[in-house]
Amino acid sequence: MAPNSKSDSAAPESREDFEKRLRKMERLYHIHHPFHVAMNEGGLDPDAVRGWVANRFYYQIQIPRKDAAIMSNCPDQEVRRHWIQRILDHDGREGEEGGIEAWIRLGQAVGLEREEIVDLRHVLPGVRFAVDAYLHFAQTAPWQESAASSLTELFAPTIHQKRLDNWPALYPWIEEAGYDYFQRRLGEARRDVQHGLKITLGSFETREQQDRVVEILQFKLDILWTMLDAMWMAYVEKRPPYAGCPSADPST
Amino acid sequence: MAPNSKSDSAAPESREDFEKRLRKMERLYHIHHPFHVAMNEGGLDPDAVRGWVANRFYYQIQIPRKDAAIMSNCPDQEVRRHWIQRILDHDGREGEEGGIEAWIRLGQAVGLEREEIVDLRHVLPGVRFAVDAYLHFAQTAPWQESAASSLTELFAPTIHQKRLDNWPALYPWIEEAGYDYFQRRLGEARRDVQHGLKITLGSFETREQQDRVVEILQFKLDILWTMLDAMWMAYVEKRPPYAGCPSADPST
Repeated sequence: MAPNSKSDSAAPESREDFEKRLRKMERLYHIHHPFHVAMNEGGLDPDAVRGWVANRFYYQIQIPRKDAAIMSNCPDQEVRRHWIQRILDHDGREGEEGGIEAWIRLGQAVGLEREEIVDLRHVLPGVRFAVDAYLHFAQTAPWQESAASSLTELFAPTIHQKRLDNWPALYPWIEEAGYDYFQRRLGEARRDVQHGLKITLGSFETREQQDRVVEILQFKLDILWTMLDAMWMAYVEKRPPYAGCPSADPST
Repeated sequence: MAPNSKSDSAAPESREDFEKRLRKMERLYHIHHPFHVAMNEGGLDPDAVRGWVANRFYYQIQIPRKDAAIMSNCPDQEVRRHWIQRILDHDGREGEEGGIEAWIRLGQAVGLEREEIVDLRHVLPGVRFAVDAYLHFAQTAPWQESAASSLTELFAPTIHQKRLDNWPALYPWIEEAGYDYFQRRLGEARRDVQHGLKITLGSFETREQQDRVVEILQFKLDILWTMLDAMWMAYVEKRPPYAGCPSADPST
């Protein structure tokens, strides 16, 4: 039996059941990754927290490019008029700081210098490859599929709220000003996800299409998970890339 | 001082020095990765060896696509007439098995079924993202740059020879027929690298261009290294993706 034959013949789910199936994928959200579990229990040392903030910055700065790719592939003016808000939220405007700037302040609050954040020197190759795969998908997939890949936002408010609840006590050395990013995303993510859900539930109506959305959401969950695998290796195992290689011999 | 200013003003290296600089990058080859070190000391259990073979298969099957991308971007007939041999080596021809088939036999020799190799079920997301980044680079970079990214072949004969020398004693449970892939690549890699080196040394002649090749080779080393990070997490740490997540509840 071909792997798709079940889906080919199956009746579509109702919108309610389809949404329920997507929401259930929260169980695979990176909040359950060992790195994230340790982070939310206060189990990371300052270097590991800094590593997370510096690496996650690479994800943050690709978000507006991902959203611009979706807009670039989308002929529907109404959708674009909504979607542009995501870019404005992250890039900001003259006189109005965006999420990227707020993330840099988080970096400073955990003890990083602005320069070492923005020059990406701490970004691990594994994080780069995963994030680049996300951008590449958004640039090349149909815009409705790329929009659906953003639906991990369904699960984001919980993760931001947990950080706001737990971190001040677990990491008293983090300056309070750093928490602004999580606070602002609480509202933005809830608003964005309504629009993303509406597009997804309205665009994918056969069972085969619905199954495709599940695959896409899994791909996006894989990206978030893999980023933390790379950080686990570097900052928990303390085996960053090329540790243990013979040193360069400048004399030869 | 801008990071590139040294290179902009520096005189080009002689071909000999440039080649020496590239060869010295062997110190960052994945042969020094903890996963590889463990593998070559007999420190992996059968599941980890199988995981490596199954994941590395994803790299193997992208090689002909990578080489076809280089040919597709290359207007030089003479180069294409050489380069095509790499595709033939891996894909094979009617009546002539190629490297991909030889890798499947390696998989069978370590106890995998053909089907579970070719359906890619064991391929980790981190491996997939890294290998996909390599293919994407080959599809979009100038062909000389993509050709240069293949130069990790400079270091491949050593790694294949070590496996041939060490594995039969370390892993007596691996069937001997599996070693054919390493044996055949010993000769092929030595031949390929002569051609790749000639193109690289002849195409990149300013100091800035030479530095760019070093960056490209570093990118390729990052890919090989990152693949093993993902395998370490899954098969040595025994924390494959989504281990520890709440289980799906089929009743709800």
